[in-house]
Amino acid sequence: MLKKPTIVLNVKTYQEAIGKKALEIAKQMDQIAKQNSASLAIAVQPTDLRMIVEEVEIPVYAQHVDPIKPGSHTGWILPEAIKDTGAKGTLVNHSEHRLTLADIDECIRKAKAYGLETIVCTNNVQTSVAASELESDFVAIEPPELIGGDTSVTTANPEIVKDAVDAIRRVNSEVGILCGAGVKNGEDVAKAIELGTQGVLLASGVVKAKDKVRALNQLVRGLIE
Amino acid sequence: MLKKPTIVLNVKTYQEAIGKKALEIAKQMDQIAKQNSASLAIAVQPTDLRMIVEEVEIPVYAQHVDPIKPGSHTGWILPEAIKDTGAKGTLVNHSEHRLTLADIDECIRKAKAYGLETIVCTNNVQTSVAASELESDFVAIEPPELIGGDTSVTTANPEIVKDAVDAIRRVNSEVGILCGAGVKNGEDVAKAIELGTQGVLLASGVVKAKDKVRALNQLVRGLIE
Amino acid sequence: MLKKPTIVLNVKTYQEAIGKKALEIAKQMDQIAKQNSASLAIAVQPTDLRMIVEEVEIPVYAQHVDPIKPGSHTGWILPEAIKDTGAKGTLVNHSEHRLTLADIDECIRKAKAYGLETIVCTNNVQTSVAASELESDFVAIEPPELIGGDTSVTTANPEIVKDAVDAIRRVNSEVGILCGAGVKNGEDVAKAIELGTQGVLLASGVVKAKDKVRALNQLVRGLIE
Amino acid sequence: MLKKPTIVLNVKTYQEAIGKKALEIAKQMDQIAKQNSASLAIAVQPTDLRMIVEEVEIPVYAQHVDPIKPGSHTGWILPEAIKDTGAKGTLVNHSEHRLTLADIDECIRKAKAYGLETIVCTNNVQTSVAASELESDFVAIEPPELIGGDTSVTTANPEIVKDAVDAIRRVNSEVGILCGAGVKNGEDVAKAIELGTQGVLLASGVVKAKDKVRALNQLVRGLIE
Repeated sequence: MLKKPTIVLNVKTYQEAIGKKALEIAKQMDQIAKQNSASLAIAVQPTDLRMIVEEVEIPVYAQHVDPIKPGSHTGWILPEAIKDTGAKGTLVNHSEHRLTLADIDECIRKAKAYGLETIVCTNNVQTSVAASELESDFVAIEPPELIGGDTSVTTANPEIVKDAVDAIRRVNSEVGILCGAGVKNGEDVAKAIELGTQGVLLASGVVKAKDKVRALNQLVRGLIE
Repeated sequence: MLKKPTIVLNVKTYQEAIGKKALEIAKQMDQIAKQNSASLAIAVQPTDLRMIVEEVEIPVYAQHVDPIKPGSHTGWILPEAIKDTGAKGTLVNHSEHRLTLADIDECIRKAKAYGLETIVCTNNVQTSVAASELESDFVAIEPPELIGGDTSVTTANPEIVKDAVDAIRRVNSEVGILCGAGVKNGEDVAKAIELGTQGVLLASGVVKAKDKVRALNQLVRGLIE
Repeated sequence: MLKKPTIVLNVKTYQEAIGKKALEIAKQMDQIAKQNSASLAIAVQPTDLRMIVEEVEIPVYAQHVDPIKPGSHTGWILPEAIKDTGAKGTLVNHSEHRLTLADIDECIRKAKAYGLETIVCTNNVQTSVAASELESDFVAIEPPELIGGDTSVTTANPEIVKDAVDAIRRVNSEVGILCGAGVKNGEDVAKAIELGTQGVLLASGVVKAKDKVRALNQLVRGLIE
Repeated sequence: MLKKPTIVLNVKTYQEAIGKKALEIAKQMDQIAKQNSASLAIAVQPTDLRMIVEEVEIPVYAQHVDPIKPGSHTGWILPEAIKDTGAKGTLVNHSEHRLTLADIDECIRKAKAYGLETIVCTNNVQTSVAASELESDFVAIEPPELIGGDTSVTTANPEIVKDAVDAIRRVNSEVGILCGAGVKNGEDVAKAIELGTQGVLLASGVVKAKDKVRALNQLVRGLIE
């Protein structure tokens, strides 16, 4: 399972992360993970999963699965197909791809059935606690108003992270807790861990950085120091 | 562009068509296409596109794209990412993945912008004519009540195919017309062409067949005789 | 607030419950509620809310609200508009109208802001506990496979009701718990209460009954005895 | 049927148009329609339909229907329930409530089956022509980027209106054509008619006006002069 604490990079469907460009980012993360014995993971588009899994050792995640089993579901994302690529897990219920409560539960069950780990994304303290009652491996709280912004949630709203950690821990001592939105550097990561999380989920902070290797190295310092 | 008349196989998310199994079907189609100088295409899951494109010469299609451009669209299917795999086109608005009218139009535009062909699926005569007013390369009419069934639309309801062809041709002389639902053998294909279409879209007739090569060979006979 | 224990009748969009026919059912419930000093409520279509609220004293609920505030949301169900009709509350996340986790949370908040009570519907033990972490007034567990069937959930699967009650009570001592699916008579209601719930949510058991008054009277006996 | 040319006011879910406030607007329109022998219609929230229908003579429309028949569809908008309120018709596929192509077709069919008129909203020339191949009574083109803005589509982009009219008339000589987005005064209405439409669909231009009666009177001048 994804080793804690961890940094999970979601490359979304950014122009800078299609095909070979996503592979390049994954390779850079792979090298930095090894150099620092750090736990890093990358979530990529479904079209790139198989290619990237073959080339790196860090865990590769899908960005989404649909709550379906094999059958007549043209164009939807099958959990078993994600498993077949060699991916290690999947994001579930990202703020850009919300699912019904019943489907979040079903996606977690289906992922688990195939040995895929799950990171369920949530938007506030209460939905984070609700999600932590399901059997995902991680809950990642990301206040939507801060996503893609310049200020890290750990600076802009540390209370929401602290409150989510406290509320989740009252009902679930096992689930990994991540936070995200605006996370950009090592201080943000260190602060996230200080607030009780097991790491961060981020996207633009690396993918949109002029120097991605530098951005990744800065982030990792917050993880290992 | 996909040569007419044609047989397009949609492998859906069938158990029999995940990963290597989808590749195997694509290779069989590739060989049969060459042997018979026949126009065959396969629509596969996004996770398998890149792998299959590298191994076969027949056109490989996606089963779906979302009407998005590069950016913050975690877990959705980016047209540019489909193009990046080497796919030649995509199904749009399959009966198992309906889109809004505005999004069908947008998917066609975005696909075209990347040089991807489009096959828009429809459910009856009127929606087929409506779809033919957009700029897709093909319209594929599939009466939902016959999809996955044992009787071909060309036998169960030849009128709907004939009427769709007539109605579409009154407003669009260019668009390719396919029909589907229950299509299983060469007679169904021949009948589809006799009714004025440029081929068929099918799924279970091949993917669920005990002997897929035999099923494909039977279908192709309807195309070339 | 809706007095516990209670019977909540969802008339859905049944042919037998449009307009005056829904009003007739509401009036029958109103009379039976008074005769038996029983807590009954009815959830009706948005087009009928105002008319029914004016004619009965039992609480009238909406079947759904959308997580929106006043503005440009053509054709969606505004919580404030539901309040304006005089309705007392709303179902949220019915199995026929699932919402994202974030939207369930938002609907509850918006309903509360207007003084509307909420009954959040769920499909299994884990989603019921998850929902009970939000601030709804009631959680109603309804196993989808039993909805509309002939056997009450209290007979077909009493464990799921018992387990949901136990699991919810570990984290929330306040929220009302209802169960539903296949509920038809007083024994089902009595059994639901015996299993630890505060009542039932039902639909076809009354609306599709030949003699609705008789069906209601039978149900109420399970509540008051 | 709605007399042409016409002005259709969609009050959306605006704060200024809930319950009695929507009724007040409808009454003002009713009076102005009579004074000027003008064709005006209003589209209101489902919770207000019945109340408003009882008090005015102008046609009252729903803002949306779902493509369902009576049955187990909790919380959705039943065409038959809309008919039961006395409404004369419904908007379909508004830009804030898009439907799949198959569902637009089905909504029109179901509405027609109950004698309800339909106004299908579209976003550009091609989707307008596509919609005009279905059997709706009106097609209303509204470029999304101009909706809610200060400049009327008839000024900002008269070509799109002209092109839509021309393209629709090539395939359908019967369907009423409306345009909308930014429409605010009589000149906009007159220009819309000059461009070949049979009227306008508007919202904020009246609902957000300080003096709604004045705004309505101005609009009507463009209709009757």
